[in-house]
Amino acid sequence: MGNTFGHLFRITTWGESHGGGVGVVIDGCPPRVPLTEADIQPDLDRRRPGQSSITTPRKETDTVKILSGTFEGLTTGTPISMWVKNEDFRSEAYNEMSEKFRPSHADYTYHAKYGHRAWPGGGRTSARETIGRVAAGALAKKILKARWGVEVLACVTQVQHLKATVDADAFTSEQVEANILRCPDAAAAPAMIELIEQRRSEGDSVGGIVLGVARNVPVGWGDPVFDRLEADLAKAMLSLPATKGFEVGSGFEGVLLTGLQHNDPFRNVDGEVVTTSNRSGGIQGGISNGAPIHFRVAFKPVATVMHEQDTVDVQYRDTTLRGRGRHDPCVLPRAVPMVEAMTALVLLDHALRHEAQCR
Amino acid sequence: MGNTFGHLFRITTWGESHGGGVGVVIDGCPPRVPLTEADIQPDLDRRRPGQSSITTPRKETDTVKILSGTFEGLTTGTPISMWVKNEDFRSEAYNEMSEKFRPSHADYTYHAKYGHRAWPGGGRTSARETIGRVAAGALAKKILKARWGVEVLACVTQVQHLKATVDADAFTSEQVEANILRCPDAAAAPAMIELIEQRRSEGDSVGGIVLGVARNVPVGWGDPVFDRLEADLAKAMLSLPATKGFEVGSGFEGVLLTGLQHNDPFRNVDGEVVTTSNRSGGIQGGISNGAPIHFRVAFKPVATVMHEQDTVDVQYRDTTLRGRGRHDPCVLPRAVPMVEAMTALVLLDHALRHEAQCR
Amino acid sequence: MGNTFGHLFRITTWGESHGGGVGVVIDGCPPRVPLTEADIQPDLDRRRPGQSSITTPRKETDTVKILSGTFEGLTTGTPISMWVKNEDFRSEAYNEMSEKFRPSHADYTYHAKYGHRAWPGGGRTSARETIGRVAAGALAKKILKARWGVEVLACVTQVQHLKATVDADAFTSEQVEANILRCPDAAAAPAMIELIEQRRSEGDSVGGIVLGVARNVPVGWGDPVFDRLEADLAKAMLSLPATKGFEVGSGFEGVLLTGLQHNDPFRNVDGEVVTTSNRSGGIQGGISNGAPIHFRVAFKPVATVMHEQDTVDVQYRDTTLRGRGRHDPCVLPRAVPMVEAMTALVLLDHALRHEAQCR
Amino acid sequence: MGNTFGHLFRITTWGESHGGGVGVVIDGCPPRVPLTEADIQPDLDRRRPGQSSITTPRKETDTVKILSGTFEGLTTGTPISMWVKNEDFRSEAYNEMSEKFRPSHADYTYHAKYGHRAWPGGGRTSARETIGRVAAGALAKKILKARWGVEVLACVTQVQHLKATVDADAFTSEQVEANILRCPDAAAAPAMIELIEQRRSEGDSVGGIVLGVARNVPVGWGDPVFDRLEADLAKAMLSLPATKGFEVGSGFEGVLLTGLQHNDPFRNVDGEVVTTSNRSGGIQGGISNGAPIHFRVAFKPVATVMHEQDTVDVQYRDTTLRGRGRHDPCVLPRAVPMVEAMTALVLLDHALRHEAQCR
Repeated sequence: MGNTFGHLFRITTWGESHGGGVGVVIDGCPPRVPLTEADIQPDLDRRRPGQSSITTPRKETDTVKILSGTFEGLTTGTPISMWVKNEDFRSEAYNEMSEKFRPSHADYTYHAKYGHRAWPGGGRTSARETIGRVAAGALAKKILKARWGVEVLACVTQVQHLKATVDADAFTSEQVEANILRCPDAAAAPAMIELIEQRRSEGDSVGGIVLGVARNVPVGWGDPVFDRLEADLAKAMLSLPATKGFEVGSGFEGVLLTGLQHNDPFRNVDGEVVTTSNRSGGIQGGISNGAPIHFRVAFKPVATVMHEQDTVDVQYRDTTLRGRGRHDPCVLPRAVPMVEAMTALVLLDHALRHEAQCR
Repeated sequence: MGNTFGHLFRITTWGESHGGGVGVVIDGCPPRVPLTEADIQPDLDRRRPGQSSITTPRKETDTVKILSGTFEGLTTGTPISMWVKNEDFRSEAYNEMSEKFRPSHADYTYHAKYGHRAWPGGGRTSARETIGRVAAGALAKKILKARWGVEVLACVTQVQHLKATVDADAFTSEQVEANILRCPDAAAAPAMIELIEQRRSEGDSVGGIVLGVARNVPVGWGDPVFDRLEADLAKAMLSLPATKGFEVGSGFEGVLLTGLQHNDPFRNVDGEVVTTSNRSGGIQGGISNGAPIHFRVAFKPVATVMHEQDTVDVQYRDTTLRGRGRHDPCVLPRAVPMVEAMTALVLLDHALRHEAQCR
Repeated sequence: MGNTFGHLFRITTWGESHGGGVGVVIDGCPPRVPLTEADIQPDLDRRRPGQSSITTPRKETDTVKILSGTFEGLTTGTPISMWVKNEDFRSEAYNEMSEKFRPSHADYTYHAKYGHRAWPGGGRTSARETIGRVAAGALAKKILKARWGVEVLACVTQVQHLKATVDADAFTSEQVEANILRCPDAAAAPAMIELIEQRRSEGDSVGGIVLGVARNVPVGWGDPVFDRLEADLAKAMLSLPATKGFEVGSGFEGVLLTGLQHNDPFRNVDGEVVTTSNRSGGIQGGISNGAPIHFRVAFKPVATVMHEQDTVDVQYRDTTLRGRGRHDPCVLPRAVPMVEAMTALVLLDHALRHEAQCR
Repeated sequence: MGNTFGHLFRITTWGESHGGGVGVVIDGCPPRVPLTEADIQPDLDRRRPGQSSITTPRKETDTVKILSGTFEGLTTGTPISMWVKNEDFRSEAYNEMSEKFRPSHADYTYHAKYGHRAWPGGGRTSARETIGRVAAGALAKKILKARWGVEVLACVTQVQHLKATVDADAFTSEQVEANILRCPDAAAAPAMIELIEQRRSEGDSVGGIVLGVARNVPVGWGDPVFDRLEADLAKAMLSLPATKGFEVGSGFEGVLLTGLQHNDPFRNVDGEVVTTSNRSGGIQGGISNGAPIHFRVAFKPVATVMHEQDTVDVQYRDTTLRGRGRHDPCVLPRAVPMVEAMTALVLLDHALRHEAQCR
C-alpha cells in the first residue's frame, strides 16, 4: 500500500533499484495535452546520478519511454504509463548488504515489516523510486504552466551550516541551473560545493535545505480541513527520501513573532487583493491566497558513508558495516527536481479539485 | 472536499462555529471496543476554550453525545457518530466580520474560493472544527493503548523565544497536566505563562512549539512510498489550524551534522534491535523502527489581536479592522490534545493497514 | 468500513434503527446551492414507513434537520450534516430478535463478522439506514436538475408475477405518485396493489422490479475502465437492501439477440448524434451517450413474514422463529425514492469528475 | 480517472490496443507470496484471442513479464508491475475506424468525452484492456486458494437462447476447460458451439450468460452499507466490456416468489450454521454467510459484425460502416477468466479489509 498519490491527477509508482525498471502510471490527466518523452526527459536528467562531481558517480541514463495514454503526440485522457529500464549492474558489489542492515537506511524496517526484501541496491528504498514521481511531476508542471501560468521552482539554500541568500520571489530557473549545486546564490555556491567535496574526500556526507516556490497560483486552491494545501505539501515533501522537516511561510522562525508582527495585512493593489507581507507563505486557512507559495524542506545527510559503523545483521547479531563503492556525498542537487515534481503534483491535483467543486 | 482523514480508521468531520454543532463520523472502528462518552469527554475538556487564564475566555462546555455505532457500551463495527451541540451566542458581536477580512485568517480565501461563507465566529475555519478530530483521536488513543500498549503524548516546549527543557522519552502525562500551559518543565513554565499573560495584556498573542511523541510503537507501521509514517504525520499536523512547520527526529537541526554524525547505529539489546541514538525519530524509510517517535510542530501566533490592522472589505476596498471581544493569546495548551489526536489517528490507521497486508 | 459513497460528491451515512438517529455527511457539495430542509423532506416522506396500506404500519415522521454546511439558505462548500432523530419505540417487542437470527436477514452475518450487534430493530441493517442516502440524493437530484437539466425518476414495473406497461421515456413523476404503489401504469396498478394486500393478509410478502431512468444526461459522463457509469450504477443499486439484480438497457433479454439485431445505429438528428434505438441504455463504453439512461433493479420479497420458520439461535442451536408485530409486505413503493437517490448520487459524482478532467 | 480498482489489494491498469502494451500495477499484495510469470500466464492464455475457432482469429501470444515487486520468486510487499507487450499490427487495416464511429462501440462516447482518441484497434476500449485485470486476478486467485482455500470459478451457461444445465455447486474447472466454449454441460455445449459458428458464418455474433461462483468463502467478508459484497461484485462485473446485467442468488427470478418461499432457513449442521437453500447466493446483508457465492452476468452480442450499418462520422454526418477483417463471433469463452479475475479481486480485497477491522 501507499504507492499512489493524488485524487484527481493520481500517480502510482513502482519499481526497484534492480530488476525490470521503475515507472509510474498517471490516471486522470486531462486529454489533448501535448506530450512526448522530450517533455519528461529533462527533469529525469536533472534527477539522475552521475551528473556532476558532487553526486553519486553511478552512471545511468534513465531514458523514459511512454507506453500508453498518448496518441499522435497528445494525451487521450486514459492512463499514461511511463517506464525507465534499469541498466546493467554488478550484483556482486552488494553482497554484504544482504546480510547486514545499513544504519539509518530502511533495510531493517523493510526486513521487519515485510519479512523479505529486495536488498540489491536498496530495492524499493533506492532513490531510483523517485524517477516515477519526477516523470509525472514534469507533466504536471507543464499543465500548470500552460493552463494557469503557474511556475514551480526549487533550489538549494543551505548545505550543512553554509547558507545562501536567495530571494524566493525573484530567483530564476537559469540561476538554479547555473551551477552543479542548483543554488541560485552564485556568490555562496562555490564554498558550498567545496564543502561537499571536502566531505566526500572524508568519506562522509552532508544534508541541507531546499526551498520550494510556486508563483502565479490562483487564489482558491486547497481543500480544508484535512487536505489543506500546506498539509498536502507537507505530506508530499516528507514522502521524499531523507527528508526530516517542512515549513511554510514564516515556519519555525515565525513562532518568535507576536500576532501583530506576524499578520499579513491585506491591501487592494490595482484591483487585486494582495498581502503586503507573506509570512503566510501564500496559503491561508489551507487555501492559496494568490501570493507566491514558499516552503523549505530539510534533507538529512546521506546515510551511506565510507566508515565502519555499528549495526546488526539479519540474525540480529551485533556487527559492523563499512560503506563501499559508489558514494553520494550530497542528495541536494538531485532533490531539487524531486521537490518541484511533488509540488506540481499537489498543485495540479488541487487545481482539478477546485474546478470540480467550485467552478 | 477534504473533510475525511484516514483509510481504514476513517474520520469525517463537519460543523461550524455557529449552527447545529460540530461532529465526526468514524468508519472502520474495530467492533467490541468499550466506548462511552466518558472516554471522549476528557480530551474535549482539554481542548475547549475557557479552561484557564491563558486561553480564550469563550465559555463552552462542549459536551459530546454518541449517536450511533455502539450498543450496550461496546462498538459494533458500524459508523460512530459523535456530536457536540453549539451553545448560544450573541451574533451581533460579529457584524464587522461579515464585511471585512481578518488579516492572516481564512476569511478572504474562503470568500474567494466558495463565494459564500458562514462568517459568524469564522464558520468552518473556527477552531471548533477540531472538536471532531479530538473526539475521534480520544477513541484512537484508547485502542492503541489497549491493543498495542502504544502511548501518545504531546506537550508545549516553546512559547515565542522561551524554551523549556523536556526529555522526550521521559515526560509524563501528569507533568503535562500539572500546569495550565501543558509544559512538563515545571521550572520553565511560570515564565512562559507570564509571557503569554503579558502579550494578552498588550492585546497581542504568541505562538510556539508542541512536541509530539509516541512510545511503544511496534516496528513495521508505515506504508512507503507516499504514505510513509512521517509523511502522514506531517500532513496530519499541517492540517491543524495555525501550524507552520513539522520536523521529525533531528529535523532542521539535523542538516548541521555529517552523515557519520547523524546515523543511528543498530545494536542488539536483550534480543531486540535498537538504535543507540534516535535522530531518525523512530521512523526509517517511512516505517516505525520500534524506537519512540518524536516530532515537533510550529504554531504561529494567534491571528486575532486587539489592534487596528490594515485589511480589505468584501468589495476589496482598503480599510482597517480591530479585533474585539474574546481574545485568545495562545493556542498552545489547547493544541496539545489536537496533536495527540492527529498522531493517534495516523498511528491507528497504519496499525490496521499493517494488519491487513503483513500479518 | 464501507459507509462512504462517491469521490467528489461524497456521502458518509451513519445510524441504527434505535439510538440517537440516522444521518449523513455530504462532502464536496458545490457552494451557493439554495438548500433548506424543505428540499429534502419530500423524498424522506416518500421513503418513510406508514405512508400507505401496503407498507409497514410503523409510524415515523422522519423529520430532517440540517446541522451544518449552509448559511443564510445557501451551501457554503463545507460538509453538510443532516440528521433524522429516532422516535420512541417499545424495546420489549424485540426481545426474541436478540436470541434468534431471522432467516434471510443480516442478523447472522453481522453476528459472525462483528461479534456484537445492535439487534433492536435490526440495528444498522434496518431500512432506516437508507434515510441518509435519500436525504443526500434529494440534494443531488436538485443540483443535477438545476445545472444540467437532468431528470432522475424511478417507478415500480413489476410485483411478483404482475407486470406493468411503462414507457421508460415518457412516464412522469405525477403518474408515479398517482397511486400508493408508485407504478405509472394506472390500469395495472390496482391488481398489483391487490396482490400485495393479499400477501399481507396471508402474513407473507412480495418483491418486484423498479425501473430507474435519467433523462437529459449530457454525453461524456462516466470513467472507464472500472468506474464505468453502469458499473457505478450497478454498485449503487446492489448496495440497497433486498436487491438481487441489476440490468441496463437490453439487459438479460439482450443476450437473445444477435449483434446485428442488438446494435444501436447512430444518426444525426438536428445536428446532434443520436441512436435510433437504445439497447445500450444510454451508456456506451462506460460513458453516457446522450440517450436516456434505463436500468432495472430486482428486489426480493421482504424477509420478515408472519410464519414459523426454521433458524438457529445465537448459540447456533436449531430453533424456529415467527415474525411478529409490524409487517411490511412490500418494499417497492419505498424503494422508488431510494433508487432515485442512488442514481442521482452516481450521476452527480461523475458530472463533477467530468468537469475536473475534461472541461 | 477510473483505472484503479480495490482498496487494500489495489490494481491500476493501463494500455491500449496499439502502442507500448498493456499492464497492471498491484499495490498492497501481501509479502512472501511465491510468484513468477508461470502463475499468471495460464489465465492470460485462457483470455487471449485466437485460442479456438469460435473467437477472434487475431493472433497474440500475450506474454506477461513481471517488472517489479518480487525478489527471488517471492513478493516483497512493494508494487507488482506486470506488462504485456503489444505485437506488430497492420495499421492500414483500420483507417475507416478513424473516421466513423462503430455502432454500439465506445468510439463516439470517447470522442465526445475526451476530444481525442486512440482509434487503432479501439485503443483503450479494446478488450486488450482486460489483460491487466486477468493478470492481477490470477494472483488474487492464488492467494485466496492458499490462505483460505477459496475457489473461484466461472463458466458459460447460455449462448443466445441455448441454455446449459449446470450445477453451480458441483461443476469443476476440468469440465469448464473440456471444451472451447468453457461450458461444463458436455451435452449442451456442441449445439451452442454450432450456433456460434453459424452466426460467424453469417457475419453476425452472439452474447450469453456467464455463471460465477466462489466456494469456501468464510463467513464475514463484505462491508455494509455501500461496499456490500454483492455491490462490489456487481460493479466488478459491470466494469467488464459488453456486460448488461448482474444477478446474485435468486436474482430476477427471485421476484416471482413470496417471502416465505424465498427465505433461506438456517440449520446447524455439524456445528456450523448453514442455510438449507441458497437463494441468498451466499451473501446476506452484504456479508458472506459461508454458503457458496453464485451470480450470473449477461454479456451482449459482440458489436462488430460484418454487415453494413448506419452510423455517423467524426463530423457527425450520416454514413454507413461495414465491419471488416478479424471477426469475433462470441466473447463468452474469453469472458470466463475475466469474470474469475474480477471475482477474485473483490474477494481478496474484502478478505484483507476483514482482517484489518475484525480480526
